[in-house]
Amino acid sequence: MDKTQNLNETNQHGLKTIAYDNQTKSFPEIANLVQRDLLTGGVDFDRMLSTISAKEPFSVMSGIKPSGAYHFGSLLTVQEIIAFQKLGGTAFFCLADMEAYLDSSLPFEKAKKIAVDNIADVLALGFNVERSYIYFQSVEQRVQHNALLFSKFVTLNTLQAIYGKKRSIAYYNSALILVADILLPQIIDGPIPTITPVGMDQLNHARLTRDIVRKAYPEFTLPSFMFHSMIKGLDGSEKMSKSKPFSFFRLDDPEQNIIKVIDNALTGGKDTAKEQKLYGGNPKDCRIFDLFRIGVETDYQMLKKRELDCSSGELLCGPCKSDLKNQIITLRNEHLDKKKYFKEFSIKIVKEAAKL
Amino acid sequence: MDKTQNLNETNQHGLKTIAYDNQTKSFPEIANLVQRDLLTGGVDFDRMLSTISAKEPFSVMSGIKPSGAYHFGSLLTVQEIIAFQKLGGTAFFCLADMEAYLDSSLPFEKAKKIAVDNIADVLALGFNVERSYIYFQSVEQRVQHNALLFSKFVTLNTLQAIYGKKRSIAYYNSALILVADILLPQIIDGPIPTITPVGMDQLNHARLTRDIVRKAYPEFTLPSFMFHSMIKGLDGSEKMSKSKPFSFFRLDDPEQNIIKVIDNALTGGKDTAKEQKLYGGNPKDCRIFDLFRIGVETDYQMLKKRELDCSSGELLCGPCKSDLKNQIITLRNEHLDKKKYFKEFSIKIVKEAAKL
Repeated sequence: MDKTQNLNETNQHGLKTIAYDNQTKSFPEIANLVQRDLLTGGVDFDRMLSTISAKEPFSVMSGIKPSGAYHFGSLLTVQEIIAFQKLGGTAFFCLADMEAYLDSSLPFEKAKKIAVDNIADVLALGFNVERSYIYFQSVEQRVQHNALLFSKFVTLNTLQAIYGKKRSIAYYNSALILVADILLPQIIDGPIPTITPVGMDQLNHARLTRDIVRKAYPEFTLPSFMFHSMIKGLDGSEKMSKSKPFSFFRLDDPEQNIIKVIDNALTGGKDTAKEQKLYGGNPKDCRIFDLFRIGVETDYQMLKKRELDCSSGELLCGPCKSDLKNQIITLRNEHLDKKKYFKEFSIKIVKEAAKL
Repeated sequence: MDKTQNLNETNQHGLKTIAYDNQTKSFPEIANLVQRDLLTGGVDFDRMLSTISAKEPFSVMSGIKPSGAYHFGSLLTVQEIIAFQKLGGTAFFCLADMEAYLDSSLPFEKAKKIAVDNIADVLALGFNVERSYIYFQSVEQRVQHNALLFSKFVTLNTLQAIYGKKRSIAYYNSALILVADILLPQIIDGPIPTITPVGMDQLNHARLTRDIVRKAYPEFTLPSFMFHSMIKGLDGSEKMSKSKPFSFFRLDDPEQNIIKVIDNALTGGKDTAKEQKLYGGNPKDCRIFDLFRIGVETDYQMLKKRELDCSSGELLCGPCKSDLKNQIITLRNEHLDKKKYFKEFSIKIVKEAAKL
């Protein structure tokens, strides 16, 4: 796969593939992500696992840009945070409203409203509020303060090389705010290991973060990162994107819309049922299988069975899609019920985070 | 003078010369600065005077980079703040420790210690704490927050044009922090006129500030600025600078050092006493006269008499320098006594500003 190639190319930057081996096997929550091919590489990830084994304190740090409802693909990060909470970590969950303002001009008031919906999603998925610190970047003074300080520890050339040549420095400041987010657990709790789950496209950002830590906080533990593979657009495009309505869906979307997007999705099926029975389908390049893999079927044995049944030609696209629709609609309805249940709690959390 | 020429050149940017006219005459504190040739130009300065005449609320905003003791020249800004306090303004006094860190790597703890000395100076000069808000940039969340937001409202090109091409964006962020300082009075008290006294070299910074206000806070009153002429180095160099020990002195310096710097200062005298009696001296290009003008002799009539006596050849450099030394040593000792008196109060103010 391309992915593996990328990992080899970037090995000199401390990135290592994460394999389903003896170390990962001892952490079922992580092993499950690795088996499902969701967690592919990490920086200082094995050290993180040693920390967990030794039952030493650690934090898991991530968040969301509150500019819209979670789509099905982005819920992956939340699964990862929850996995590390279950392993004993304290979760730092950032509502990235400064980033949303600086990159996309999203007004802070609007971000707060959207955050209520995002937090309800997170709670519905099983996020443990007791072991967490949820905050808005625009309210968390330490994040803004450090972002400004960090501008001293990186050259304009480096920022332009990583993020492209931008018209204003807002985008670069936004990146430095994200660096400060990743440092916040250690600013608050002192030098302890932290793990941040990000997409594979954030590798350079991870390296920048570690470079800045080396210069600004040599006494801190270098942050660990784990990279999940990028989820492709359901319509066959390279990534899920608001500009391509058939590339993704949200669990909040009306049932009929979700069905429509699934019906339109790229599959790994052959042109005819006859061919497929003969030669089998290709689950590796099938967005229907991707949906099972990233969240509809979390049981690896069941997922493996589906993969084999497809490859062997036993399972055709029609019944497979039907399975997906049934399961996703059940999942949707359960999720929306849970969100409804958590609505008031979410409002309370957002008010607290906004210091209102 | 060069100065006048500069003003004409930049008139299109809203800069106007400030003259000793009927309007300024009605404000003795301001008239005195104009007469002494200290206050030379302003942006929206006449509107500021109308505000004062109408007895409407206004603020005066300035501060110091707490990286060293005040030198005699920089005390001018404090005189200006105090003048506007006397005219009814609320003073916002910024301890620019973020700027000191970003531009000169000054540690925050060191800045706090130096700030105690700076505030004692300011108090000794007559600053009215009751009508003021004194703060550290590193502690004032609103300043840091707005600085980050402002990075959206100015292009990298503009920042590079004004401040030069810098290696990192720290210097640009530092400039945006200063813009946020100037806006703080209106952030706290709502849209009211504010005046900021700065050196003539800050004209571009003033323009940037007003540009950002137009974009980010169209409901605010565009900040007014007043520009004082730059005080030249006593050794004849273009400006007072730490790298040139004979270019300046501090009131805290030992008497003998001050005397030495004065003895070494550039004068407007002729080569011989005979020549000077015949043709007169040149007070316009005399650092001894500058020292009288900027703070040793605040009585304009007395200053005028000294200028005439010099030009006419009646007053020679020897006795003039003696006058200066006597007066400056008296002034120094009085000032240091006052500083001593205010020491404890200054510590208290700095602790409060640092939220310790």
